[in-house]
Amino acid sequence: MVKLDYKKGNGLIPAIAQDDKTGEVLMLAYMNEQAFTETLKTGKATYYSRSRNALWKKGETSGHVQNVKEIRVDCDNDTVLLKVEQIGNAACHKGYKSCFFSKVVGNDLKIVESKIFDPKEVYK
Amino acid sequence: MVKLDYKKGNGLIPAIAQDDKTGEVLMLAYMNEQAFTETLKTGKATYYSRSRNALWKKGETSGHVQNVKEIRVDCDNDTVLLKVEQIGNAACHKGYKSCFFSKVVGNDLKIVESKIFDPKEVYK
Repeated sequence: MVKLDYKKGNGLIPAIAQDDKTGEVLMLAYMNEQAFTETLKTGKATYYSRSRNALWKKGETSGHVQNVKEIRVDCDNDTVLLKVEQIGNAACHKGYKSCFFSKVVGNDLKIVESKIFDPKEVYK
Repeated sequence: MVKLDYKKGNGLIPAIAQDDKTGEVLMLAYMNEQAFTETLKTGKATYYSRSRNALWKKGETSGHVQNVKEIRVDCDNDTVLLKVEQIGNAACHKGYKSCFFSKVVGNDLKIVESKIFDPKEVYK
């Protein structure tokens, strides 16, 4: 079994999801040990929601699941990188492909991506 | 000034460094507000070391600084993505280009990248 270091983050480690084909960084979320085990077992990205304090099977509501193609672990065993196929081509609940749709420009944030879907239509 | 949400992580936010040219995810580290401000001011990635409890100007010892080409912020304003030019072509203190040089294969981790430098030569 792969041993990860959950201690430093009080039971959680950050997990980066990256588009397997384009290399685009889609999002960062957190995993506890159960989420990591579920991800391994199911091949679908499962995170731990810090706001809901519960396992979060990505795409359960939106259908935008992430099929995990590869998992990398960093040199300290305290961060994982998931290379995923993003179903629906959008990872962000705000309708963008990537959660990183805002760029720092001078002293402000500027949206530099286009929406793939309308959140009101997907989360009814 | 760009306002980020440092509260959820007790004063720290995760910062992903990605190779500006290839899209490779190089590492994940943490920033406090001062590290983020320093990064903006200097154009070089500055993190906060959780083990040393101090600002960490990436590359100060090794020379492997990261020139920041672009900064993205995620939809919750609690994670940043730095697109960087990695000097020395290696971000990891273990000598690899990326800290994510290990892949989950079955129940084990397997090193799937090659070393760029010998840490003993760089950190004397």
